[in-house]
Amino acid sequence: MNNHPIGVFDSGLGGLTVLQDIQTLLPHESLVYIADSAYAPYGEKDAGDIVNRCLYIANTLIQQHKIKALVVACNTATAVAIHTLREKLDIPVIGMEPAIKPAVDITSSGVVGVLATENTLKSDKFSNLLDAHQHKARIITQPCFGLVEAIEQGELEGESTRQLLLKYVQPMLDEAVDTIVLGCTHYPLIEPLLRKLVGEQVHIMSTGVAVAKQLKSQLQSMDAGAKGTALFYTSGDATKVGDLASKFLNHKVDFQGLGV
Amino acid sequence: MNNHPIGVFDSGLGGLTVLQDIQTLLPHESLVYIADSAYAPYGEKDAGDIVNRCLYIANTLIQQHKIKALVVACNTATAVAIHTLREKLDIPVIGMEPAIKPAVDITSSGVVGVLATENTLKSDKFSNLLDAHQHKARIITQPCFGLVEAIEQGELEGESTRQLLLKYVQPMLDEAVDTIVLGCTHYPLIEPLLRKLVGEQVHIMSTGVAVAKQLKSQLQSMDAGAKGTALFYTSGDATKVGDLASKFLNHKVDFQGLGV
Repeated sequence: MNNHPIGVFDSGLGGLTVLQDIQTLLPHESLVYIADSAYAPYGEKDAGDIVNRCLYIANTLIQQHKIKALVVACNTATAVAIHTLREKLDIPVIGMEPAIKPAVDITSSGVVGVLATENTLKSDKFSNLLDAHQHKARIITQPCFGLVEAIEQGELEGESTRQLLLKYVQPMLDEAVDTIVLGCTHYPLIEPLLRKLVGEQVHIMSTGVAVAKQLKSQLQSMDAGAKGTALFYTSGDATKVGDLASKFLNHKVDFQGLGV
Repeated sequence: MNNHPIGVFDSGLGGLTVLQDIQTLLPHESLVYIADSAYAPYGEKDAGDIVNRCLYIANTLIQQHKIKALVVACNTATAVAIHTLREKLDIPVIGMEPAIKPAVDITSSGVVGVLATENTLKSDKFSNLLDAHQHKARIITQPCFGLVEAIEQGELEGESTRQLLLKYVQPMLDEAVDTIVLGCTHYPLIEPLLRKLVGEQVHIMSTGVAVAKQLKSQLQSMDAGAKGTALFYTSGDATKVGDLASKFLNHKVDFQGLGV
């Protein structure tokens, strides 16, 4: 029942898609969002720099907003920095994980495509995820250079974004892909455009809802662990009343005097 | 998800029985208890004075502890002051109601006894409650002068309390009562003694658990009504980022600049 806010951050505006999923599932929670636009995109940056930015943003959210949980609403930041964040912070840290497992479970053609940034695809975290599932389907990964930048410029539907996206998905379509995983929180913003390119029959999988559910379950465990306190006051003799109350309750209770 | 405390008050220590039921049902909630021992017992006081004390205590809890809900853990104060409290306060106010309805539902002999203070028994609220149920069973009411005082002095088991209690319950037992309602939050503290006097076959009904459940349901409605807020920051150009985010989310979003 802790009413501190939840911190959500991304290199830019992609994390807003995750924020929306959190607001839908947890409408009573207050949120603080940071878009690290000055340092966007993270996808092709040096890993050490990304870790430092993530720590800086996390500490800002903790110190200035007293957040009770942190959502790393960026696949690249999750892949590169989540271990360090979990090690250094005392609050729950929830990260993004490309929806490979549900994609592999749902595919009929046996071919799954993954669109993500280069940094996500070459991270150890992603390699492990791939290793765990690639015996169950053929998984085609595709780094999407320039796509986050186009989205951050608001180019969600124009011809240049369409061309860029087509370049990345056409090879998958040629291989009879029937399930495409959006491995970057920016990509749901161009889902309408992607839908036009791939048709109605292809499954498009994003991660926001799963992350919101994981957040909810973490908050519930925190609540379950947090015990309420009790304070006792009396207008009478605090010592006498405290002694009697301790006798009634079978444990020590301290009463404080009430003005009148 | 409001983590302000819940206020609980009684003329003395009887409300601790209600506090325990609340702690059992809502272990994560913080509580502030006031025992108005200097003015106890309320049972035989002037109604106007009781209303004034209740308002004073409620305002103390609101101003000093920012309570989100108030439990009037005293049957007399509920009977006399709850209307005024609900009228003057902006928070939910939960009061005690003697468990006449469940008692009438459960009795086999058709005879129900009610132990309460004189002020509770002669209140309009109690008369209405009695009117609603006395066609379904014979209800014997008994004002228990001196019983709250004995309990407040810690006399939960001694011979004098036993004699006093016997005087009040013997007439009921003579009339084949099989269900006794504890119409005062102090009385659960002498339930072990009462049990010895009435035997194992008589039902003893108190109100704390029902009040805790009602409180829980009120808090859930409050939570359901409370909508979380969202704040947005960026390390980039706040106006530009805000405009783009507004476009993405289809509603106006204001971003603030982040130091670095």
